[in-house]
Amino acid sequence: MTIRVGVIGCGYWGPNLIRNVFQMKGAEMAMAADLDAGRLEHISGLYPSVHTTTDYKEIIDSPDIDAVMVATPVATHHRFASEALRAGKHVYVEKPLARSVAEVEDLVELAEGNDRVLMVGHTFLYTGAVEKMKALIDDGELGALQYIRTMRVNLGLFQKDINVLWDLAPHDLSIILYLTGKLPRFVSASGKGHVSDVEDVASIYLEFDDGLVAYVFSSWLDPHKQRYTTIVGDKKMLVYDDVEPQEKLRIYDRGVEKPAYYDTYGDFAFSYRYGDIVTPMLKNEEPLRALTRHFVECCETGRQPLTGGDDGLTVVRILEATSRSLAAGGAKVEVSWEGKPLKVVAPPSAA
Amino acid sequence: MTIRVGVIGCGYWGPNLIRNVFQMKGAEMAMAADLDAGRLEHISGLYPSVHTTTDYKEIIDSPDIDAVMVATPVATHHRFASEALRAGKHVYVEKPLARSVAEVEDLVELAEGNDRVLMVGHTFLYTGAVEKMKALIDDGELGALQYIRTMRVNLGLFQKDINVLWDLAPHDLSIILYLTGKLPRFVSASGKGHVSDVEDVASIYLEFDDGLVAYVFSSWLDPHKQRYTTIVGDKKMLVYDDVEPQEKLRIYDRGVEKPAYYDTYGDFAFSYRYGDIVTPMLKNEEPLRALTRHFVECCETGRQPLTGGDDGLTVVRILEATSRSLAAGGAKVEVSWEGKPLKVVAPPSAA
Amino acid sequence: MTIRVGVIGCGYWGPNLIRNVFQMKGAEMAMAADLDAGRLEHISGLYPSVHTTTDYKEIIDSPDIDAVMVATPVATHHRFASEALRAGKHVYVEKPLARSVAEVEDLVELAEGNDRVLMVGHTFLYTGAVEKMKALIDDGELGALQYIRTMRVNLGLFQKDINVLWDLAPHDLSIILYLTGKLPRFVSASGKGHVSDVEDVASIYLEFDDGLVAYVFSSWLDPHKQRYTTIVGDKKMLVYDDVEPQEKLRIYDRGVEKPAYYDTYGDFAFSYRYGDIVTPMLKNEEPLRALTRHFVECCETGRQPLTGGDDGLTVVRILEATSRSLAAGGAKVEVSWEGKPLKVVAPPSAA
Amino acid sequence: MTIRVGVIGCGYWGPNLIRNVFQMKGAEMAMAADLDAGRLEHISGLYPSVHTTTDYKEIIDSPDIDAVMVATPVATHHRFASEALRAGKHVYVEKPLARSVAEVEDLVELAEGNDRVLMVGHTFLYTGAVEKMKALIDDGELGALQYIRTMRVNLGLFQKDINVLWDLAPHDLSIILYLTGKLPRFVSASGKGHVSDVEDVASIYLEFDDGLVAYVFSSWLDPHKQRYTTIVGDKKMLVYDDVEPQEKLRIYDRGVEKPAYYDTYGDFAFSYRYGDIVTPMLKNEEPLRALTRHFVECCETGRQPLTGGDDGLTVVRILEATSRSLAAGGAKVEVSWEGKPLKVVAPPSAA
Repeated sequence: MTIRVGVIGCGYWGPNLIRNVFQMKGAEMAMAADLDAGRLEHISGLYPSVHTTTDYKEIIDSPDIDAVMVATPVATHHRFASEALRAGKHVYVEKPLARSVAEVEDLVELAEGNDRVLMVGHTFLYTGAVEKMKALIDDGELGALQYIRTMRVNLGLFQKDINVLWDLAPHDLSIILYLTGKLPRFVSASGKGHVSDVEDVASIYLEFDDGLVAYVFSSWLDPHKQRYTTIVGDKKMLVYDDVEPQEKLRIYDRGVEKPAYYDTYGDFAFSYRYGDIVTPMLKNEEPLRALTRHFVECCETGRQPLTGGDDGLTVVRILEATSRSLAAGGAKVEVSWEGKPLKVVAPPSAA
Repeated sequence: MTIRVGVIGCGYWGPNLIRNVFQMKGAEMAMAADLDAGRLEHISGLYPSVHTTTDYKEIIDSPDIDAVMVATPVATHHRFASEALRAGKHVYVEKPLARSVAEVEDLVELAEGNDRVLMVGHTFLYTGAVEKMKALIDDGELGALQYIRTMRVNLGLFQKDINVLWDLAPHDLSIILYLTGKLPRFVSASGKGHVSDVEDVASIYLEFDDGLVAYVFSSWLDPHKQRYTTIVGDKKMLVYDDVEPQEKLRIYDRGVEKPAYYDTYGDFAFSYRYGDIVTPMLKNEEPLRALTRHFVECCETGRQPLTGGDDGLTVVRILEATSRSLAAGGAKVEVSWEGKPLKVVAPPSAA
Repeated sequence: MTIRVGVIGCGYWGPNLIRNVFQMKGAEMAMAADLDAGRLEHISGLYPSVHTTTDYKEIIDSPDIDAVMVATPVATHHRFASEALRAGKHVYVEKPLARSVAEVEDLVELAEGNDRVLMVGHTFLYTGAVEKMKALIDDGELGALQYIRTMRVNLGLFQKDINVLWDLAPHDLSIILYLTGKLPRFVSASGKGHVSDVEDVASIYLEFDDGLVAYVFSSWLDPHKQRYTTIVGDKKMLVYDDVEPQEKLRIYDRGVEKPAYYDTYGDFAFSYRYGDIVTPMLKNEEPLRALTRHFVECCETGRQPLTGGDDGLTVVRILEATSRSLAAGGAKVEVSWEGKPLKVVAPPSAA
Repeated sequence: MTIRVGVIGCGYWGPNLIRNVFQMKGAEMAMAADLDAGRLEHISGLYPSVHTTTDYKEIIDSPDIDAVMVATPVATHHRFASEALRAGKHVYVEKPLARSVAEVEDLVELAEGNDRVLMVGHTFLYTGAVEKMKALIDDGELGALQYIRTMRVNLGLFQKDINVLWDLAPHDLSIILYLTGKLPRFVSASGKGHVSDVEDVASIYLEFDDGLVAYVFSSWLDPHKQRYTTIVGDKKMLVYDDVEPQEKLRIYDRGVEKPAYYDTYGDFAFSYRYGDIVTPMLKNEEPLRALTRHFVECCETGRQPLTGGDDGLTVVRILEATSRSLAAGGAKVEVSWEGKPLKVVAPPSAA
């Protein structure tokens, strides 16, 4: 059985999807749509066998297409995905799944109603590093999780229809939710648009019921690219540096704090490290390839994806809370997990 | 003229002061006090000529002492510093200068009233890196400052009488204030104590009147030491990584954002860098030596220190605002710069 | 005009060629040959339109093939390349071009006689880093070149038919020859096989007529991958670290040596750096894509490639000298550049 | 019992000795000699209690001095050390111990004849990293050692009376000899002086009887400081990077070589790493302090130092062989370990 795939959107990210589908066993990279004829020509040059079109409807309407992958601006995710689901296609959508909880809920319902796969591009859950971290945490190696910090910054690639949190934080949020298996109770966010009105630097603070807290930092305005996650448990600690080409993950012994007296500057400068560090070997595969394979398998078997519509919903629910918090000047917002609307938690008066 | 120095506190940081004073031309490292006889014995072993005592009063009362350096827990800063100022000594105090605005104001007044030097240990202002950054910013190389981010994290050295912001953030705040020459209007803070009730991981968000924002992150719970500052202007950007042994400062061309289409994973993985980077040569001296020399010079000449009582006051004013914000669940707090009390700015209702 | 390409060898490196040809405008990835049917099946899965065969003769004999790319073990390079040239194909061969000067000379002659392109895979000459270094050197930025050092080490990928110098050093030698525009007069080599009889760790020392010397170090036995080149001129110095994902090239001011007195360990530990460093922006393209495009252009236009048969010959001439030196226990060997045979230069007796 | 120490030479390295002796329990930093009155004034400023003199004879002749530490140019080591030993002092000498085997043998004899301690400044044997490596090797963790590579390069600090090998390689040689417990049979060296006639870039190749080989690279002409040692055993491998401020030592699993097929550039770029890496916690003390303490203890107890005269002799014997090899155009030289003179091993004719 071969899954015939149509890709909508051939801009920044689409070609990566096309390349992976093209090379995937069990899949046929059949059609690609984009409004820009130049992009389509580029795709045709790379993959002459792919049928290209400026009318995405061709993909939706084609009886030869089993699955649609959407790599367009977020504002259009719901439209393309819902039409494809209604047409009986399996659907994959880039992160974030859509621009509101309501839109995502609609997609989830459509997928269930039509018994189709709905998958979202939380790509990092398909990396060897996250896989290894998940195993370590589930095995209790880290002990009780206390605090998580993520840093996803670089220069440029400004989006126009979403702010930096909606653009970059889905990766961090999906990683945090997957690794901890927990939902945050409170969310607050700060941020500002320096280049335009759209926030280009922003931060999220998440509080969980059991005392775990997490910080997520996103920026399009940093000169030095960082992809950095710290996970602190009461037994061990992890640092996952995705920018490192070879040694992405480090496991730190918590170690014992010793009284520190320094008589020389040298001693002082070299201090602050206790316990061994282990850098485990990781699976070495392009994450998008693992993701594509998983999508194709889910289409074949009807299996629920690792990053399905519900996961996309969870992330968008948190993102919506961050927007509420930003609009409220950084106020703490309680995230509703029961279908209730989000509400702002007024901080106690401190005066 | 030789400045005869007494040091109160020979624990973690005191020996660094003692060593620098001992080696400083124009200064005599005369007396050292600590409650712990073992520490004093250690100091005597290193510097036999230094008179040691478990009674700090000996230093205060000695007519042979011109200047007192205080390296004790923060709770005692005001007591030792005020007694020394009253006794007509010049005074240097480790950061933060004291534990409240009121205490600091008292010290500032005492210093003025007695015409004595009052200096605070905002050590990083004496580094070659900060000196270079100041020059670059003042020369307009960076253009208008947009956003600053600092990261000061490591494992351990938990303090008992102050939280992690009072312990580590004075460095970042003093750097930010010095480099920008601006005072923040609003401050909000988040944080939590994971090891005890005292916050050991916390973050500050600062808003300035002209649109500049700054993020300060402090942690005692991170396995990998970081001392990282990013300063973004609309012309150029700086990254100051104090953990780097040789190349601490980088100046990034802002560069132009180009449309980015990636057909291969490799292209994607190596992307996100535009423009040249310059790593300037920096003055290479132990910061505490430059600081000590400056203190001795100020004592000799009566000159106002680069990091005087007013600077200590500014930092403590912000720290007090962060404590207010933390107590108010992260609420935005307006920092008073007119002698008025701090007040919490209730975030607008978002419901 | 479309260049129709056949690739012989689908093992370790062949798929990279196939992928690049497949995506190259002006080229058609037509046929692929390998003895291993499993590899061919893999290629077919990735690129269904490519005709695969276990008989390379099909490629040689096909009138539809304009150019042949050879990515097989070195021992077979001459056979495949010479047959292809005789059949009137343009030919690209992985480095080293062949296993002896005689073989390479034969290929060069065949290419000239048949008026065909002969190109060798000195891939690094197609990187942005080498391009930039060449421009800097040609512009006189570095001054007179004094010394070059290269380090190309990693764990594994042991070859059976050639030693580590023949495997890895072609990259370094081609870079050195290209950047300097000079030929070495003397070569000596040391090395040893630790895993088998084939040298897996080895080093070359090259002496040029004008006093320039170069060290090339190659290893299959190092746990930490390094791709590191240092180029020292009497004005400036370059470091090219190809393992760095983002900042591969650094330009160092030579600086002035200052008298160095260190009173503290810290000063000492942080010393040894004079002058600014510039990290220039580099072209960011997969080198093999630039190489493939160049090959296709040369086939179209008949233009001489940047890395043609003569360049392959120069490198193999040096490699042959290293083998002579290794066999002679590290003796210095004069490299013949006039068609004369290599001869060992007996070192003066030192006893 | 207090060991009263005189230091001869207060230039580049002397102040580090003085500082450590000054702070060492059981030692008294009594006298310091230098020809340069300015240097002495500097020392007096730092340590007023130290008696300074421009006449080293004062130290030799003083009955109050138990031990002499020599930190002068190599050409004078033998003179100062032999006079001190004859005067009944214990002696410590910076590396290399002296400028010839004959000189060192004389010192060793004098020390034995006078029953005095003779110690040489092979400082790195007092680091936590070397201590840990020694334990790992002795415990068999690495298996049989196959190959060692060291890199000690930086810009400047050119010496006039010795070449770069005599200056820098003693550290590497002493580390190699200590860790392996083996003596090399053959030595060859290459090198050249680019700034003056004195070799400022040079390399040594050492062959041991059991098949172990070692490469030592020394340079005063490299813009980027490196202090890098790789040790390859047939079970595990070590990398010791002394420039790293926090994580100096890494232990690599040898891992199994897997067949490597790469379909994407990204896979290729991120390849070449098999097995876990462990970064062990190391003792964190200034090496020179540990060395100074050891010297004082040896003076007190008469115990043989870890880096005694014999170790200095071994290193100088190898250095002398490298000079012989350099003079012979890189010829292989057999190192004599039986008191026999060094002889050049003429490489077999390769013509």
